[in-house]
Amino acid sequence: MPNPRPRGNSPKSRTRRPYGGLTLGLDLGATKVRAVLVDRTGRVIRSSGRLAHSNDGPANVIKAVVRAARRCLPEGGDALRGAGIAVAAQVDPATGRVRHAPNLRWKNVPLGRILTHELGVQVRVFNDARAATYAEWTLGAGVGCEDLFCLVVGTGVGGSAVVGGRLLEGGTHAAGEVGHLPIVSGGRRCHCPGRGCFEAYVGGWAIAERAREAVRADPRAGRALLLKARGMPGIRAETVFETADAGDPLARRLVTETERYLGDGAVGVVNAFNPSLLILAGGVITGRPELVRGVARAVKQRCQPPAAGVRVVRARFGELAPALGAAALASRPARSAWS
Amino acid sequence: MPNPRPRGNSPKSRTRRPYGGLTLGLDLGATKVRAVLVDRTGRVIRSSGRLAHSNDGPANVIKAVVRAARRCLPEGGDALRGAGIAVAAQVDPATGRVRHAPNLRWKNVPLGRILTHELGVQVRVFNDARAATYAEWTLGAGVGCEDLFCLVVGTGVGGSAVVGGRLLEGGTHAAGEVGHLPIVSGGRRCHCPGRGCFEAYVGGWAIAERAREAVRADPRAGRALLLKARGMPGIRAETVFETADAGDPLARRLVTETERYLGDGAVGVVNAFNPSLLILAGGVITGRPELVRGVARAVKQRCQPPAAGVRVVRARFGELAPALGAAALASRPARSAWS
Repeated sequence: MPNPRPRGNSPKSRTRRPYGGLTLGLDLGATKVRAVLVDRTGRVIRSSGRLAHSNDGPANVIKAVVRAARRCLPEGGDALRGAGIAVAAQVDPATGRVRHAPNLRWKNVPLGRILTHELGVQVRVFNDARAATYAEWTLGAGVGCEDLFCLVVGTGVGGSAVVGGRLLEGGTHAAGEVGHLPIVSGGRRCHCPGRGCFEAYVGGWAIAERAREAVRADPRAGRALLLKARGMPGIRAETVFETADAGDPLARRLVTETERYLGDGAVGVVNAFNPSLLILAGGVITGRPELVRGVARAVKQRCQPPAAGVRVVRARFGELAPALGAAALASRPARSAWS
Repeated sequence: MPNPRPRGNSPKSRTRRPYGGLTLGLDLGATKVRAVLVDRTGRVIRSSGRLAHSNDGPANVIKAVVRAARRCLPEGGDALRGAGIAVAAQVDPATGRVRHAPNLRWKNVPLGRILTHELGVQVRVFNDARAATYAEWTLGAGVGCEDLFCLVVGTGVGGSAVVGGRLLEGGTHAAGEVGHLPIVSGGRRCHCPGRGCFEAYVGGWAIAERAREAVRADPRAGRALLLKARGMPGIRAETVFETADAGDPLARRLVTETERYLGDGAVGVVNAFNPSLLILAGGVITGRPELVRGVARAVKQRCQPPAAGVRVVRARFGELAPALGAAALASRPARSAWS
């Protein structure tokens, strides 16, 4: 990596570093929006974030994105070199359109066009897991690795693979969507058209849903969860982990089951993509080293040898990864963004 | 593809077509060995095959391979341009070593070295699913496609992916081993260290095992299967399909369940690799167009849009694909064999 240097804004320096300079990275998840301003070394200069719930509808969520972005924009003199947004969705990077975002409940939203208009700078659109993978691969836990998989367990579950030194794209830009590996044949309903998906067991929304069902089935056993969450609607994935930490048996059972399902999905990912490095990222993983250790154990015990030799690590950037990756991808010329 | 032309064996023609000429392709599965002699257009000039059971141990199975290969070798004048063997195993293509073949019960067999010695020609070693995929991609159902997955359902279940015009390799040459995607969390034991694997439900051995268990649990309902198979040990995957074709309720239930599990695995493969084309190959699929239709339906209904737009077809070469692919891969220079 080149050393960080203050960027001059004379025409001459522009010619010498056409893809350097400051870049805006945005991240639109199911419950949060985030913006970061990064320099050409990937260092975060400024950041902002806010809650934005998918129930608010596309127009309001986009307003929240624009507000977060504006708070990060550089002052007058510092022209922006590029901007990108990572979305928990299947996107078309060529047109900047969000095709299908189950957890946002969006379909066919021309997000790139709207943001480009609002911010006055071209905003490119990327899948969030792919952006996070790119950040970890080029700046984070996966630097120098040719075969890695980055598994992102947040509200939803996504992922992306680097195989033979290339970020996989797929026929419709959706390779690595391992959140929708069926791990329980005929099992729980997912937000996608499938059943029994990995995400329907370990995604943040699914952990909360499983907990609410368990509490409904046995309200006595669920008392600690209900107290912590101040009522059924307040039960979220964090509530379950925190209540388990405090020793509550029902919450502990839910966490143990989550670990088992996380192992199932990770074993599938490692057997299918055969990475040398498995990077775990996303809100459910952040701050929970025991989940990383559990996945490492499952993979070692249950994967095919020699795929089982994979190294399992936590992401370097945690929840910042998608925004950083969107900035990094946006600072590259369009044609080489995926290689 | 160039037109088929009789190959001259003058030094001049050798110089002009350094990787053309006759190639030997071998296929070592869990229950059969096969040899084909192909010309530079992929046309089969000669073939031979025989049953060889994994219980016979590596030495006897290798003898059977050598016998099948010798029956296909060209006469004196026609020097062989290369030879390759496809094995239902995790292999190291650089050393020709079979690392782990659960269905053959082999570990660390230097197959390439042994066969090279026995046949007097360098024999390169490939994973069978990867070889089959290469055959379908370069000569068969996938010609011209940049993003495809070839799912091979035989005694075991394997697969391989072409993504962005490259056959995926993985950190230890095992990318695409989707037979070991867990599809039933905590489910049936597999021949690998895992549980609930795709292969443990739809591999030929697993269909037979599930049928034997069903017959044991209800011998009355299993009468037709027992009759057809002439006793419990004779029950194989074919027995189940044939007995179901004759209308037997137990066999039909087993086939319906197999179709559901096949759908689960195929949905996982399509969501994970996002191919434009899914090619179904292997002994369990061959001659069963209804299985191909069932997979196409499952994928369309249960995959994430737009990945669900994948086209599902049957392999062109059926059970010949691994041997053809091994020949095709062996006829290329080592460095470009995977691109």
